[in-house]
Amino acid sequence: MSFRELIQKPGPVVVGGAYNAISASLVEKAGFDAIWLSSFGVSVAERALPDANLITLSEMLHVARNMVASVNIPIIADCENGYGDVNNTVHTVREFERAGISAVCIDDNQYPKRCSLFDSVDRELISLADMVAKIKAGKEVQRAADFVFIARTEAIIAGCSVAECIDRSSAYLQAGADLLVIHSKSWRHLQQVLEGWQAPDQLVVIPTMFPEVDVQQLGRAGFKVVIYANQAIRASLKAMEEVLTKLRRTGCSADVEGDILTLPRIHELVRFQDVRNNGRH
Amino acid sequence: MSFRELIQKPGPVVVGGAYNAISASLVEKAGFDAIWLSSFGVSVAERALPDANLITLSEMLHVARNMVASVNIPIIADCENGYGDVNNTVHTVREFERAGISAVCIDDNQYPKRCSLFDSVDRELISLADMVAKIKAGKEVQRAADFVFIARTEAIIAGCSVAECIDRSSAYLQAGADLLVIHSKSWRHLQQVLEGWQAPDQLVVIPTMFPEVDVQQLGRAGFKVVIYANQAIRASLKAMEEVLTKLRRTGCSADVEGDILTLPRIHELVRFQDVRNNGRH
Amino acid sequence: MSFRELIQKPGPVVVGGAYNAISASLVEKAGFDAIWLSSFGVSVAERALPDANLITLSEMLHVARNMVASVNIPIIADCENGYGDVNNTVHTVREFERAGISAVCIDDNQYPKRCSLFDSVDRELISLADMVAKIKAGKEVQRAADFVFIARTEAIIAGCSVAECIDRSSAYLQAGADLLVIHSKSWRHLQQVLEGWQAPDQLVVIPTMFPEVDVQQLGRAGFKVVIYANQAIRASLKAMEEVLTKLRRTGCSADVEGDILTLPRIHELVRFQDVRNNGRH
Amino acid sequence: MSFRELIQKPGPVVVGGAYNAISASLVEKAGFDAIWLSSFGVSVAERALPDANLITLSEMLHVARNMVASVNIPIIADCENGYGDVNNTVHTVREFERAGISAVCIDDNQYPKRCSLFDSVDRELISLADMVAKIKAGKEVQRAADFVFIARTEAIIAGCSVAECIDRSSAYLQAGADLLVIHSKSWRHLQQVLEGWQAPDQLVVIPTMFPEVDVQQLGRAGFKVVIYANQAIRASLKAMEEVLTKLRRTGCSADVEGDILTLPRIHELVRFQDVRNNGRH
Repeated sequence: MSFRELIQKPGPVVVGGAYNAISASLVEKAGFDAIWLSSFGVSVAERALPDANLITLSEMLHVARNMVASVNIPIIADCENGYGDVNNTVHTVREFERAGISAVCIDDNQYPKRCSLFDSVDRELISLADMVAKIKAGKEVQRAADFVFIARTEAIIAGCSVAECIDRSSAYLQAGADLLVIHSKSWRHLQQVLEGWQAPDQLVVIPTMFPEVDVQQLGRAGFKVVIYANQAIRASLKAMEEVLTKLRRTGCSADVEGDILTLPRIHELVRFQDVRNNGRH
Repeated sequence: MSFRELIQKPGPVVVGGAYNAISASLVEKAGFDAIWLSSFGVSVAERALPDANLITLSEMLHVARNMVASVNIPIIADCENGYGDVNNTVHTVREFERAGISAVCIDDNQYPKRCSLFDSVDRELISLADMVAKIKAGKEVQRAADFVFIARTEAIIAGCSVAECIDRSSAYLQAGADLLVIHSKSWRHLQQVLEGWQAPDQLVVIPTMFPEVDVQQLGRAGFKVVIYANQAIRASLKAMEEVLTKLRRTGCSADVEGDILTLPRIHELVRFQDVRNNGRH
Repeated sequence: MSFRELIQKPGPVVVGGAYNAISASLVEKAGFDAIWLSSFGVSVAERALPDANLITLSEMLHVARNMVASVNIPIIADCENGYGDVNNTVHTVREFERAGISAVCIDDNQYPKRCSLFDSVDRELISLADMVAKIKAGKEVQRAADFVFIARTEAIIAGCSVAECIDRSSAYLQAGADLLVIHSKSWRHLQQVLEGWQAPDQLVVIPTMFPEVDVQQLGRAGFKVVIYANQAIRASLKAMEEVLTKLRRTGCSADVEGDILTLPRIHELVRFQDVRNNGRH
Repeated sequence: MSFRELIQKPGPVVVGGAYNAISASLVEKAGFDAIWLSSFGVSVAERALPDANLITLSEMLHVARNMVASVNIPIIADCENGYGDVNNTVHTVREFERAGISAVCIDDNQYPKRCSLFDSVDRELISLADMVAKIKAGKEVQRAADFVFIARTEAIIAGCSVAECIDRSSAYLQAGADLLVIHSKSWRHLQQVLEGWQAPDQLVVIPTMFPEVDVQQLGRAGFKVVIYANQAIRASLKAMEEVLTKLRRTGCSADVEGDILTLPRIHELVRFQDVRNNGRH
């Protein structure tokens, strides 16, 4: 089912974040509806770098293609601020759609951005008009009718008023965005916006900083799509940190056997049986 | 300290397997002496593919470079069979050394190989002479004196006799290999070889299939280097499978908060503080 | 028009070889029907390496994707021996089709191959049965009905008899190959084969070594597709060698102005006008 | 000889622009002192895209590495505006130095830039202070003492006064830039600056738009380094356009044989003889 078809069905669409082919594959196997290709995840996993527009469109595309080759559910690419201005946004849409990605999410941060979830960092948005231009240009160059453009406003994160957040949100949907993320570190701030403005069937939420609000609540509050953006990579890092520390300390692999996946299960995950035995079939 | 310096110190060198920049960084932080860039890990993680010479030298190099940029300890690249014949081996050595890798490990499997740890798969080795040619040619083109060539024989895995395994092992070191892996799924088989032949300070072991034999035992048995090749990725996969399944089932991210690394800890891992705030320094 | 549609029209299909996006674009602008993504061209241009299976599937794919993004006519990828055995061939077909390539050409050289056009090099073919297995497996995994599998036999180059060449040719088409290249350095040898065997509408020729035989003659002799595989890169190299030598000698760029494309013409080629001026549209 | 050693010798250093491994190799063979890895060249050749910050740092690095593997003379990478702010500049310096590049050239254009040589395009510079911050940060993170940071001001192109151009030029060298490009489309404008200010042994010129001024004149005017940035690619494009057009029209490859390099000469260029014949040596 295409991502557009998914969002036209009743009920919330639940999306899991991934950062390489195998995490995407595990998101699919766990029953999520779609995959969020996370710029945070790729920055951290592939480059051990903070999520600050240091990784390039090419590095994201590289992972995007590896995911497309490995899963059958739609993939949404977190394309940050479109890697620059309106021309870069147009280029971004073309590159990701050509790679087989179903949707891009582009935000109104200035390039280079600062990671959304850090308090101490100043943040500037591009003007409403510039973001509208990006959305219009991005929609104009998409090829498939099914392709989805998600606009994301960082207005709340940047400390804008509720009114400005609503202005931007309306304008972005008006400009043609198919879906909208109002990014927030706080459930309360988000609720304040939703009291003044709603967009039935077009709102997306990334509840990283309010994990106690569950899918049902988010759905009732008016969100069509819920993205669990980074739980997979964070699970991976915690487990590796613990297992590697223990293994180095005891010097005995048997001590961690219970904490690591068996080889037969891995071979199952990567369809080892599909590797034909030198054409003898 | 270079990898060559490490192997000249007393005591076993303990190496941890990694498959992307952040796992390499965690191996380093856990106190391992060096990193094993695992072809199994890259196949599984980056491509969700079995380890069967489907991923290319380029895909391994891509990860190698990302690791080199992220860690300060030496990296050993698992270069399988050198991706082809003697010419491909020469090319492989040049590419990996140029990328900043400290050592390559090249085995005597035919190209394309089958993954070493699966019983059901037939396996053919290249001739002793062809492997010797690869080793000599590889040593000839290395640039830095410190660069290390590890030869790996899959003779035991392929069902060869102890005598043939010893013949190959001696010939590979004679040809100029700096270190030797006698790969085995069985500790008993490996001990049989070691009863007839030893190479003080040149033997490497990858104890995946005999996890109960610890670093001390391996050191006493005559191994200079112990490689824990795939525990990190296996920990990662187990954790992600569990967390994603739970998250999808409950639809509440709070339910997995205890199983995932905190964002501040991740920002510490990736040195978020190094990102300067728009040149205000 | 898809490549399959092209080969179903009357008359010869004329294909031009390219090795990067701009050469592909120039092939298109010159009026060729399709583009040949040349492994020789990519080896020479991108790596300054001989065409001997040193460049990887990834390096070819990288160029393939850049071409797909730049032209509107079909692209045929020269995939050599499929980069290994039947598993690698399956992987190759999947990767290139996913990248937007219209056809792959896979030959019966052993991996690693030697470049077809050099006399002094021994050459071994894989068995007829192994090549048939590659063709069948490759056809089985293609997604689009329009995708074209071109088999190429190097039997004449390898010094096989006319009879063996015909045996292989028939078997490859029988196994499902859509088109067939009987590669040859000699027009006479090729004619000898064609006297004993023809495959109307399925034969492809690469007349590098018999440049005096023109498209009309080749068409009358029974060839459906004519590939000018490397003239573009060879033109490029000759021109650069001359211009750089002259420029270095005289130290005056005006001396080569007549030999180089003007900047306005280049901006036209790369559609500079498409770069929107900061969203002011 | 390192690039730093080159610029410490008497007389002008003459640099030739390249955009892939073989053009770099031809620049070296023609006797140039160093190679200019041109962002214009890579945009046009690899992507058929205008030079407008659409290609990524990764795409430039990809070519940089292929060049480093192919030539023995120093390579200067045209890193445009450092792909963003001071953090991106720091990342850029690290990535290119790690790739084996000898020098980076970073300009004071805003990101995304517009191509320097087009009249009709508005252009904005970053502030003098921001550029100084980039230079200082870039110098701070270089590893090798020999690494060279070239600052480039586009003040003349942007229509600034001679005074502002001189202010910026002095400040950039003061901040630690090793060399300086005062980019200009006009020899007269450049001379106006040089009348008011000189920086012996630190000035670089790219005489694309005043080709009649030769190396000797440029040297006498006070330039230490002369970069012929794009003559190679322009020669390549002109030759390919002509040869492909003729070949398509006549349908006979013999008609262009005089315009294309011979295969033996190409095999010489790529050192075909280095490919060892299956270890038989």
